[in-house]
Amino acid sequence: MIKRTPLAEVGEFGLIDRLVRAWEAGRKAGAAEGAVPAPGRPGADWINTGRSGLRLGVGDDTAVIDIPPGKALLSTADMLVEDVHFLWSQSGPRSLGRKAMAANISDIAAMGGVPGWAFLSIGVPPGAAAEDAQELYAGMGEMASSFGVVLAGGDTVRSDKWVIAVTLLGLAPHRPITRGGGRPGDLILVTGTVGDSAAGLYALLNPDTAPGAGLTGEAEYLLSRHQEPTPRVWEALALAGRGGVTAMIDVSDGVASEVHHICRNSGCGAVVELARLPVSPQAEKLACAAGQEAAHWALYGGEDYELLFTAPPEEAPGLAELVRDLTGTPVTVIGRLIPASGGVAAVRPGPGGGTFPLPPKGFNHFA
Amino acid sequence: MIKRTPLAEVGEFGLIDRLVRAWEAGRKAGAAEGAVPAPGRPGADWINTGRSGLRLGVGDDTAVIDIPPGKALLSTADMLVEDVHFLWSQSGPRSLGRKAMAANISDIAAMGGVPGWAFLSIGVPPGAAAEDAQELYAGMGEMASSFGVVLAGGDTVRSDKWVIAVTLLGLAPHRPITRGGGRPGDLILVTGTVGDSAAGLYALLNPDTAPGAGLTGEAEYLLSRHQEPTPRVWEALALAGRGGVTAMIDVSDGVASEVHHICRNSGCGAVVELARLPVSPQAEKLACAAGQEAAHWALYGGEDYELLFTAPPEEAPGLAELVRDLTGTPVTVIGRLIPASGGVAAVRPGPGGGTFPLPPKGFNHFA
Repeated sequence: MIKRTPLAEVGEFGLIDRLVRAWEAGRKAGAAEGAVPAPGRPGADWINTGRSGLRLGVGDDTAVIDIPPGKALLSTADMLVEDVHFLWSQSGPRSLGRKAMAANISDIAAMGGVPGWAFLSIGVPPGAAAEDAQELYAGMGEMASSFGVVLAGGDTVRSDKWVIAVTLLGLAPHRPITRGGGRPGDLILVTGTVGDSAAGLYALLNPDTAPGAGLTGEAEYLLSRHQEPTPRVWEALALAGRGGVTAMIDVSDGVASEVHHICRNSGCGAVVELARLPVSPQAEKLACAAGQEAAHWALYGGEDYELLFTAPPEEAPGLAELVRDLTGTPVTVIGRLIPASGGVAAVRPGPGGGTFPLPPKGFNHFA
Repeated sequence: MIKRTPLAEVGEFGLIDRLVRAWEAGRKAGAAEGAVPAPGRPGADWINTGRSGLRLGVGDDTAVIDIPPGKALLSTADMLVEDVHFLWSQSGPRSLGRKAMAANISDIAAMGGVPGWAFLSIGVPPGAAAEDAQELYAGMGEMASSFGVVLAGGDTVRSDKWVIAVTLLGLAPHRPITRGGGRPGDLILVTGTVGDSAAGLYALLNPDTAPGAGLTGEAEYLLSRHQEPTPRVWEALALAGRGGVTAMIDVSDGVASEVHHICRNSGCGAVVELARLPVSPQAEKLACAAGQEAAHWALYGGEDYELLFTAPPEEAPGLAELVRDLTGTPVTVIGRLIPASGGVAAVRPGPGGGTFPLPPKGFNHFA
């Protein structure tokens, strides 16, 4: 049983000390797991970017960071709120910390960038224990360590519900890849498999389905994909370094939503071939046993943190091969960009199939 | 009467569009107020730093910012929570926005830096109107515009209570001034007047005091200092550009707390002469009428966003004169650093006076 120290007992500055130490402990645990790329692998030379640039961190009016000349600075911010984005009772603070950090690292990856410096502001309920917040920071440090991210600042305040606001800074070693460079005729590709996170959530919310169907191992895999996604930093660096990618985004809201984002920013339409969506055998089996559709998880589930990108047809095979060779991660063509007048459509093969409009149906926080 | 559009009606992306436009409207209103320094004044050549560096802003996976070679990046983050840091019913969203932005700009100023790029993540209660959030952003844009800060990204989520998380990036044109360079013998100086913000809060919470004492004009001044503080960016740039300042911090928690911060980071003690604290005549009059002590407001009130800095005795007069000449802001010597063994003490003159320990007594969010 973890000790539970009341926040009033440690005070604001005591808590900050504990959180910095928890992050460091998480960082060491993460580094020991060996997620760091071996020398010579893509990104290996960027792994200490965060540490080497940080001249001054937590404990002054601002952090001070040295940016190497000619490298663009990338910055992303997001906010997670208890009972809206997560249930505290269900998530476990360490897993929640890993996931919050993964989501931001994934945004930097989607630009072809290297994450470097994290600023963490958290709202902590008065009834929480210092150890809860420490576990959260340990989880964030654990995820961050795999990519050389250092804790550079933040804020710690009281709040009725847990609130986690992360700002992550990074560098673009190559030209940043936006959502806006896609052209009609470009192929749409995606790394790894999509829909696993939604399948894991399904297994979590329906705990009898997987064991009932003899799919306990599958459910465990899917759950780990849901709770501890791996941002595709090295894959993205390989892509950005080679050149030829015209637009890129990470799969945070689902394939349908991401394709819509690229189409809007690139002034294109798209056709997505549902039969080509890379669905894991584990998700496929669970969908079958549960009477669900795995393609729906892929399109609308989100939180897979895979990369979705576009490239001209002559570049696509070489890009896919490069990523597979350097990182072991498969890359699959799932469709193509078309002129904007064609809208965003999906094609389903076979009887009862055909072409139909693909709505974005992203998660609307205010609906 | 402002229109009240339910959030569910505008949706997440609709709200983001409205917020970006509200910021821009606030920016124009602020620029028209003429807070921007005239050409030749300190900081005038840095006023468009934010705009010129922003290659890509809201609407992609990350912002992309070009940092000029040789300039260190500064970054600060903080979080404000409804009912903990402010009462929504009392603040008014525009004034709240101005203040939230001012606090962050002040942190950049305290390093001798130029603020540039803001990332704003807000949690909005489901019952709020889109116009409430727009007013908040308009206030932030208004304050930001005086210092050339541009909106570069953020997040918009649902939350039971209002939550405002700001990350502000800036540049250090000169060597950043930390809290850690003070040495025994250095004088402690402060810009402007301190305690006005606490006096304004007192007037707000005790609405009968000032009119009863014929101090309505004084109360108005103090209230504006409380609700719309001016961060001392140009003063700090003048100081940093000249050199000779050994440590600097902004007065966000009160003079006592800030002196303790500098002493801790610099490995020093300090003596603060209470009779020298620069208190405005307005605060002095209100304190007298209300039976309060203005020095207490200065020491423990906070939110004045003045600069508190240290410099060797031979540098101090020149620094004070420079700031006064270039910006019109007075600078006052309030004490000196001593060896750490002396602790942090205050001196009160006259009968019943003497030297006594000065506790930091900063606001403990968890007490």
